[in-house]
Amino acid sequence: MKPAETSQIAVIGLGSMGLGVASTLLRAGRTVSGYDPVPEACAKFEEAGGRLATDPAAASRDASVVVIVVVTAAQTEAVLFGTDSHEGAVATMRRGGVVLSSATMAPDDVRRLAERCEAAGVDYLDAPMSGGMARAASGELTVMASGSPAAFALADPILAIMATTVYRLGDKPGIGASFKMVNQLLAGVHIAAACEAITFAKRLGLDINKVFEVITASAGNSWMFENRVPHVLKGDYSPASAVDIFVKDLGIVANMGLAAKFPTPVAASALQLFLMTSAAGMGRDDDASVARLFAQMTGLDLPGGAKAK
Amino acid sequence: MKPAETSQIAVIGLGSMGLGVASTLLRAGRTVSGYDPVPEACAKFEEAGGRLATDPAAASRDASVVVIVVVTAAQTEAVLFGTDSHEGAVATMRRGGVVLSSATMAPDDVRRLAERCEAAGVDYLDAPMSGGMARAASGELTVMASGSPAAFALADPILAIMATTVYRLGDKPGIGASFKMVNQLLAGVHIAAACEAITFAKRLGLDINKVFEVITASAGNSWMFENRVPHVLKGDYSPASAVDIFVKDLGIVANMGLAAKFPTPVAASALQLFLMTSAAGMGRDDDASVARLFAQMTGLDLPGGAKAK
Repeated sequence: MKPAETSQIAVIGLGSMGLGVASTLLRAGRTVSGYDPVPEACAKFEEAGGRLATDPAAASRDASVVVIVVVTAAQTEAVLFGTDSHEGAVATMRRGGVVLSSATMAPDDVRRLAERCEAAGVDYLDAPMSGGMARAASGELTVMASGSPAAFALADPILAIMATTVYRLGDKPGIGASFKMVNQLLAGVHIAAACEAITFAKRLGLDINKVFEVITASAGNSWMFENRVPHVLKGDYSPASAVDIFVKDLGIVANMGLAAKFPTPVAASALQLFLMTSAAGMGRDDDASVARLFAQMTGLDLPGGAKAK
Repeated sequence: MKPAETSQIAVIGLGSMGLGVASTLLRAGRTVSGYDPVPEACAKFEEAGGRLATDPAAASRDASVVVIVVVTAAQTEAVLFGTDSHEGAVATMRRGGVVLSSATMAPDDVRRLAERCEAAGVDYLDAPMSGGMARAASGELTVMASGSPAAFALADPILAIMATTVYRLGDKPGIGASFKMVNQLLAGVHIAAACEAITFAKRLGLDINKVFEVITASAGNSWMFENRVPHVLKGDYSPASAVDIFVKDLGIVANMGLAAKFPTPVAASALQLFLMTSAAGMGRDDDASVARLFAQMTGLDLPGGAKAK
């Protein structure tokens, strides 16, 4: 039997982010078992040298670290505790092992899932990631993590491979998620504002390439303006990050605000723009598609056209 | 009589920005006459070596470059064309001279003022500035300029002293103002969002100093988040830039949107927050006071307290 130091790793969820994480761990010489419901994702994982399993429970058998790279709290719950059709990862992984959970979700959901894991004898590291698929593939993610010292101790060697920046934000699950939600509030508002501003500029008759140049050197700049407006300038809405991600994340912010009686009017207006863009058929396109919504509404001629494919 | 090359300069408006511009020109060895209705501003200008005049017309007599550093279109119009009580700068400045107009205003107002100047034989450079009072004082402003080649030719030596970056955005007044309004839309939204997010973080029980550290290194960052949130962390709302500036500037964006039938829902929600903050008595305080509005509404304990002084 292997000693605990060479912990067995499972990665559940092999989409663009999860496949990047799994590939990075494989390149570092680790043995990685994995699962995803999508056959194409599974094929790429096997090509990279991963050991494919038939469900989350089989992938996690005897694993001391289970990395969950899915999108929602509901998906995370299904991976951890199973569904009608299959067992969950918690049932088969090593007692005293750690779940490294990366989905962006409400802190209350994190706390609930962490309690169930701990009751089953498994640690839970609240570890939302950011950086996108390129950084997942190169092992340069940023992780906003919180959890017990025991959870960190077991996860640290794996985090060191996956990420260049790991924020240790507290010793309780939920704190990492709270930081991530604050980031998502700002990121979502800045994308919506970037799309509103660049189409407004177009409506004013300005050269929007020049607007990009001037704004990125001015006080109106944001990380998202700089990152997303080039998609609008090129007319390329192939999804780096989809509209529906921000429908979800700003939806979580809205519900957190309702629960805490804390108004978030700017985030609320951005959420409505993502929702309108999704309703107009662009939910799975790049989140800069909010610019196409403005173009459709106002009859603007943007690069690549304003219509969803 | 002096040759045209050593053009005589007037600076009208000697507040924090105008005084900085005038002082920079004086340090560069230029003769500068000036006017401001506020006695304290005039005293500082004389201390710096400026020639104080009794009104805009007197300050501008025979000047070939008149730099107007006021806040609104109405103030600019009064400086240029006078009021019931005094003559304007256009009446006394040199024919063929140039007005360098820096107030942030609607492009339509710029076009109207420029036409009146040109009808009176004076060029108009649409030249909104950014950079704040520190950069005005050090001659490191950014100017988003548009105007005729003749206007640029006369203004260039002065711009070279005042600013480190001069964007030449087109040959018609109004283009510079349009660029500035796009910047102000984004800047205003980003300040409001920064205040919403940092108080939301506080409500979630997070260490807001740590939130600042994490967000400024993440995709949620903006120039304004990085610049304004330290005011909230220190509880220092002495005005670097006042709430009422964004009431004005996002008000202009709202009116431009109405005129063009172009919706700006995110900017509209930010405008309402600045308006609420101004209505709550904080209009002349720093624009990060939107955070105090959230704190007052929700009973949060922010550094320095949530009350306006």
